[in-house]
Amino acid sequence: MNSTFPSNQLSDTTTAILKTIREESPLVHNITNYVVMNNTANALLSIGASPVMAHAPEEVADMVSIASSLVVNIGTLSPHWVEAMKLAMNQATELQKPIVLDPVGAGATPYRNQVLKELLEIAPPDIIRGNASEIQALHSAQAKTKGVDSTITSESALEAARSLSKTYDCVTVISGERDFIVSGNSIAVVDAGDPMMAKVTGMGCTASALLGAFAAVEEDLAEAAFAGMMVMGVAGEIAAAKADGPGSMQMHFLDALWNLGQS
Amino acid sequence: MNSTFPSNQLSDTTTAILKTIREESPLVHNITNYVVMNNTANALLSIGASPVMAHAPEEVADMVSIASSLVVNIGTLSPHWVEAMKLAMNQATELQKPIVLDPVGAGATPYRNQVLKELLEIAPPDIIRGNASEIQALHSAQAKTKGVDSTITSESALEAARSLSKTYDCVTVISGERDFIVSGNSIAVVDAGDPMMAKVTGMGCTASALLGAFAAVEEDLAEAAFAGMMVMGVAGEIAAAKADGPGSMQMHFLDALWNLGQS
Amino acid sequence: MNSTFPSNQLSDTTTAILKTIREESPLVHNITNYVVMNNTANALLSIGASPVMAHAPEEVADMVSIASSLVVNIGTLSPHWVEAMKLAMNQATELQKPIVLDPVGAGATPYRNQVLKELLEIAPPDIIRGNASEIQALHSAQAKTKGVDSTITSESALEAARSLSKTYDCVTVISGERDFIVSGNSIAVVDAGDPMMAKVTGMGCTASALLGAFAAVEEDLAEAAFAGMMVMGVAGEIAAAKADGPGSMQMHFLDALWNLGQS
Repeated sequence: MNSTFPSNQLSDTTTAILKTIREESPLVHNITNYVVMNNTANALLSIGASPVMAHAPEEVADMVSIASSLVVNIGTLSPHWVEAMKLAMNQATELQKPIVLDPVGAGATPYRNQVLKELLEIAPPDIIRGNASEIQALHSAQAKTKGVDSTITSESALEAARSLSKTYDCVTVISGERDFIVSGNSIAVVDAGDPMMAKVTGMGCTASALLGAFAAVEEDLAEAAFAGMMVMGVAGEIAAAKADGPGSMQMHFLDALWNLGQS
Repeated sequence: MNSTFPSNQLSDTTTAILKTIREESPLVHNITNYVVMNNTANALLSIGASPVMAHAPEEVADMVSIASSLVVNIGTLSPHWVEAMKLAMNQATELQKPIVLDPVGAGATPYRNQVLKELLEIAPPDIIRGNASEIQALHSAQAKTKGVDSTITSESALEAARSLSKTYDCVTVISGERDFIVSGNSIAVVDAGDPMMAKVTGMGCTASALLGAFAAVEEDLAEAAFAGMMVMGVAGEIAAAKADGPGSMQMHFLDALWNLGQS
Repeated sequence: MNSTFPSNQLSDTTTAILKTIREESPLVHNITNYVVMNNTANALLSIGASPVMAHAPEEVADMVSIASSLVVNIGTLSPHWVEAMKLAMNQATELQKPIVLDPVGAGATPYRNQVLKELLEIAPPDIIRGNASEIQALHSAQAKTKGVDSTITSESALEAARSLSKTYDCVTVISGERDFIVSGNSIAVVDAGDPMMAKVTGMGCTASALLGAFAAVEEDLAEAAFAGMMVMGVAGEIAAAKADGPGSMQMHFLDALWNLGQS
């Protein structure tokens, strides 16, 4: 791929995948954090997917069985939830359903690093999405080194993303001012988006949730991830052009997702 | 009753009940799911009720004691929360405070069916509200049969609703494009609302929360449920007329609830 | 201080503290309730702070270590969370990082009173913020008397606030139509704000979260609390002037926070 795309315009492939989501309305099972549940559910509904949030160990395997993909986000993790994440990831692997992992706050505490290590050992995800710092930290923890540099160059995160992609045979997405979609040695770049997106809580988590929908309908996961990040970026630009601040940004963003490709 | 009501206009009875809510500001105790807590609290505030969310087994009975009604919603259930639901429902029954049960995702997993069966055995609710699929699944689980049909006719959900209503001496509400309020052999229909409502997460949960407020001030629970669903539907129509998508729909919906019957 | 400030205009000191928050972007660690997590995170982002929500006993001490302040809010408390609150408050005390305590629903149940008593014994907070009823109840519980008067005069809450301030060497904030910032024998008054703020869930919780950011950058905690409550009130007035109800109020409030002092 190695392509950069002009923003505020969806490629034919992205439009086609989005159309498929609207037609098939895949059920995306989210085990995610308390802060963003409402937003991510609404974002999934806005692109035409069907969200479900469930986290009891007593039912996650059953829920995965009826879902088309699984999104695991460790934002507000605790042992009870981690147990459910493991059961769900195991089941998804068993049933060959795509798993998206969002390593929120990787590197911030030893507990997060330990949990991420355990999750990666149990079931390699199909897509990992994080910011540069999280991708770097996830790679370091996985490589059994400690600590996260306080300043992180894109290049070092790219190397970490490439290594994670190869180790787990997955697509790694670094999201930020520019998004990088890394699949083995190939890198695609999404240059869409707006700085205001970083001022709305959980925009990264929303990206991961959307990737769950895109991965549910598109087998080429690099294409799926590229399309998902492009939809995020373009919706963000449309919303930012109308927003007076983070409050209206959040609202216009959902409206933009809803209207994208609806013509 | 057996009445259909012209939409975008509240009946005198509905207006009167809504006025009572605004005057008395009943405390509605919600044990509900993580996804919708913020929205349902805001919806209750917007119609003039006073929401409280509390789920610790250590305090739910005390909270029920100072509340005017109890809303139990199993959306993101787990054993610890189910324990609290049971304690709260027991206490509400003891103190003769109305209970609204929202069987979110009934039929989706065996765990949900099992929990619903236990809740219904412990304390029959006064109002049950779900979509057609949930009402059907709740009825099947209660009748000890397994499985949920993938396509559900309104008629079959109506029969399930009627059976639930008679078994538990409660009002059963099927919400959807048309809402049915079933009380024994009588059925009332609310034809208000807008398809965009289904694209905002937790609109059904919001309906259940509002029913908690309506049941708190109106003894005739069929009237209370009819009024609550009518307020939902009319607010939904007002909001949809202004909305550009699910984001602005959510905002305008709360504003519409706030302004209904205020003049 | 003992000053009242004209509303819809920030003092030079408040503007300066807000500017420091935007420059330093302090990490504010919140252990708060499910209902308001999204809003409080967005409010913190809108004033330029960096929010983190984490509650696992396995990591809260580590999270406090990298944070600039700690906000503890008992809105939807349960034993597992209370354990984390204690660990976090201990760590914050150890590392001399400011603690803001929001005693949501103090007096509503014996469990809340008991937990608040335990929290206050473990680690005295630097700022306590509640409504008049909560401040009164917190004081009564701490004084080992039972019960909360159903009608509470501002004067009685002021006495409770003064007593709490002296006992714990902290600033006590009573928020309401008028906000009182009580520090020992001195009282400052903020007369900004709008009644519509009480119709958006979690506005009080948002105030407490913002105080975490203000306390993180301003050592004079009475000044920090005054500035934080002034920012809340002024943003509330700006938002209310544009709002059609609680839905748009919530959105405009975040936008107003974002734009305050940005010129």
